[in-house]
Amino acid sequence: MQTKKISIVGAGLIGSLLAIYLRKQGHEVTVFERRQDLRKVDISAGKSINLALSDRGWKPLKEVGLEEDLLKMIIPMKGRIMHDKSGQITFQPYGKEGQAINSISRGGLNGLLMDKAETLGVQFKFQYKCLDVDFEQTSLSLYDGKTNQIIKFDLIFGTDGAFSAVRAAMQKLDRFTYSQSYIPHGYKELVIPATETGDFAIDKNGLHIWPRGEYMLIALPNMDGSFTVTLFLPFEGEGYAFESLNTDEEILSFFQEVFPDALKHMPTLLDDFRANPASSLVTVKSYPWIKNNILLLGDAAHAVVPFYGQGMNCGFEDCFELNQTIEKFGDDWATIFKEFNSTRPQNANAIADLALENFVEMRDKVADENFLLRKKIEAHINKLYPKRWIPQYSMVTFNSSISYSKAMAKGKLQRKIMDKVMSSPDITASWKNLDFELLIKELEEN
Amino acid sequence: MQTKKISIVGAGLIGSLLAIYLRKQGHEVTVFERRQDLRKVDISAGKSINLALSDRGWKPLKEVGLEEDLLKMIIPMKGRIMHDKSGQITFQPYGKEGQAINSISRGGLNGLLMDKAETLGVQFKFQYKCLDVDFEQTSLSLYDGKTNQIIKFDLIFGTDGAFSAVRAAMQKLDRFTYSQSYIPHGYKELVIPATETGDFAIDKNGLHIWPRGEYMLIALPNMDGSFTVTLFLPFEGEGYAFESLNTDEEILSFFQEVFPDALKHMPTLLDDFRANPASSLVTVKSYPWIKNNILLLGDAAHAVVPFYGQGMNCGFEDCFELNQTIEKFGDDWATIFKEFNSTRPQNANAIADLALENFVEMRDKVADENFLLRKKIEAHINKLYPKRWIPQYSMVTFNSSISYSKAMAKGKLQRKIMDKVMSSPDITASWKNLDFELLIKELEEN
Repeated sequence: MQTKKISIVGAGLIGSLLAIYLRKQGHEVTVFERRQDLRKVDISAGKSINLALSDRGWKPLKEVGLEEDLLKMIIPMKGRIMHDKSGQITFQPYGKEGQAINSISRGGLNGLLMDKAETLGVQFKFQYKCLDVDFEQTSLSLYDGKTNQIIKFDLIFGTDGAFSAVRAAMQKLDRFTYSQSYIPHGYKELVIPATETGDFAIDKNGLHIWPRGEYMLIALPNMDGSFTVTLFLPFEGEGYAFESLNTDEEILSFFQEVFPDALKHMPTLLDDFRANPASSLVTVKSYPWIKNNILLLGDAAHAVVPFYGQGMNCGFEDCFELNQTIEKFGDDWATIFKEFNSTRPQNANAIADLALENFVEMRDKVADENFLLRKKIEAHINKLYPKRWIPQYSMVTFNSSISYSKAMAKGKLQRKIMDKVMSSPDITASWKNLDFELLIKELEEN
Repeated sequence: MQTKKISIVGAGLIGSLLAIYLRKQGHEVTVFERRQDLRKVDISAGKSINLALSDRGWKPLKEVGLEEDLLKMIIPMKGRIMHDKSGQITFQPYGKEGQAINSISRGGLNGLLMDKAETLGVQFKFQYKCLDVDFEQTSLSLYDGKTNQIIKFDLIFGTDGAFSAVRAAMQKLDRFTYSQSYIPHGYKELVIPATETGDFAIDKNGLHIWPRGEYMLIALPNMDGSFTVTLFLPFEGEGYAFESLNTDEEILSFFQEVFPDALKHMPTLLDDFRANPASSLVTVKSYPWIKNNILLLGDAAHAVVPFYGQGMNCGFEDCFELNQTIEKFGDDWATIFKEFNSTRPQNANAIADLALENFVEMRDKVADENFLLRKKIEAHINKLYPKRWIPQYSMVTFNSSISYSKAMAKGKLQRKIMDKVMSSPDITASWKNLDFELLIKELEEN
């Protein structure tokens, strides 16, 4: 194998994991990061504090030897814990017994990846801003706050997030197809602190959801006994919106009316509400991800909304698949890039669309009787035919051998079949008498 | 009325017309253009040499007093002149007797608009490049090749085309939804020169089309007796493509096989093919078009592919509608911008989609028996009910009182009705016996 001089732009989750993979293959890897070292300075950078790590992310982290460390950092969430308006709680398992998604600290995981990369010999350079990219010379124009230098590499990877500088340079090239689109909702992070005795104030082994149609609150547990709570709300409009929640009274009365049982665990609500920004939610799609010796990965190529919990997992899977492609084609980087670019973008586009769809499901349908029955029937079919009818959520979250595109297509077909099932009269009483074998056949024949 | 200090970025067709409108309202207008004065230097800048001016463009040009000049510059094209592979020619009128679209020189029209604007007192500043926009200060950072200056205005309009610098600055703002997408085809301009006696080599009163599925040639007449010919071809792929037409032999044998009757009028084909670039075809959509005192118009906000002949016409209609909005709200610029932004983008998006659809129609269906019969039946219905069933092409091209969105929706419905009509057995023989009144009712009831 020929050692390459490689640069990675962006030392976030994806850039750091990619650095590990490439360094393990023996390349000389330097990572340039615009911000300070997050292991030394507390910088949230407007990003979510914790995340849900699931199978597609776990697999590559395990592959690079981090499973033992991970196990010390996660809190498994076995299902959705739904809070209705009256304070009633229902639990909906995410998958089968033993399956869970894992709440993990973004900063903690990023630090772990950077430590591992450094141990292997990756160089991290902080506070270097990428100003421009030369796609012919494979060079970066980098600014360290004082001087501007142009450095040449053999290969450059852009993992600098949804507002990527590498992608912005690529966008100026001819025939680069690109879209960024925002939903009308923003999000704001809030807190449910640990109790006085240091315990979790609410059940820690699930992802809490307060679904209220246009408004939604969710909470993920942290290792210190607190929960990071995220409020999703339209920026503007007729009903409650960020623009119309200004005074203490407005904020409190909104929570009292819409999320009363969460409010009682949120003593610092007003301070948190004022301190934290309302951030926007973007979907980014781009194509191609390659130009000559330069490749985009992660959010830089495909940012998604957070409602399927797959942004980070998809980015990690990018790294996993790129690594597989490298192992297949060895030194032939032109073929590696071409191959990766011909298969991966469609999967990233699929999860982007699924994440948008899942917002409607999370905020709306999860509180709906009919929807719960539908899920119950699907779970039953899955129990009868565990490999032949896998619910879409499980395909995406627990079955990394099924691609996002495949999961989307299969899920669509399942929905069509279930629509028909649900429209039959008296389904609530009669569903156990359905001809399940017939449904399976319908799924498999299409 | 309060005089405003206004800047327009881009002295193309749309910027120049907008300058006339705003100057006529008494404002102080300066137009900054990145290129040289096209009246003094021959610069094609990779743009098409001639264009089809139709009603939506004609109306505003007439409104600002340019009709008399226009009449001296145009060649009316009354319909499509179709060339099949064997050299057979058929004529398909675009609309009713007396209706035509008009071939006009881009440079000539642009020059006319600039002359008019200058006469009214608009200032043009050439070779000023817009480097950045400050949306809080309403200022432009402008570079004249030597120094960089920042100039403040009351209002700024971005009419700097599909690769707009103003829009690029807007794209960095939060919640700016944006997409740019390319079709697999590119285009290259070629020439059918005038004959030795100075005459047109082929019929000048139509838009010539050589439709061949994935490949298409069109020709529009120029005042000097020549035609500008445009070849549309995929950039790459299995069949003929720009990437695989390299040697003289390859180019000639492609034309001999696919466009034999055009080739005999193209003595300079090989020179033209080498001299002119293969340019890409982009669709741009953006939203919002406004930020504070800054507004995007024309291709900067909504570039379309050329297959409906509406890019320029839509941009001129932008100016017309903005002017109407100004006349309605007077000095209240916040309301003018808000109102324009709430109505115009959906129409621009509609024509963008229609233009993509029309590519398939132009290159493919216009040569199809079934399609011709469908058009014939529609023309017949239109003759019976001239105001109640207007073919989509006519709504878009000859009826500026029908918005693009409306034309798209009505056209979709007509297509649905006609699909049903065309699927009835023996339609070729029996179509005259259709219950046309019933079809009209179906169209109007939906």
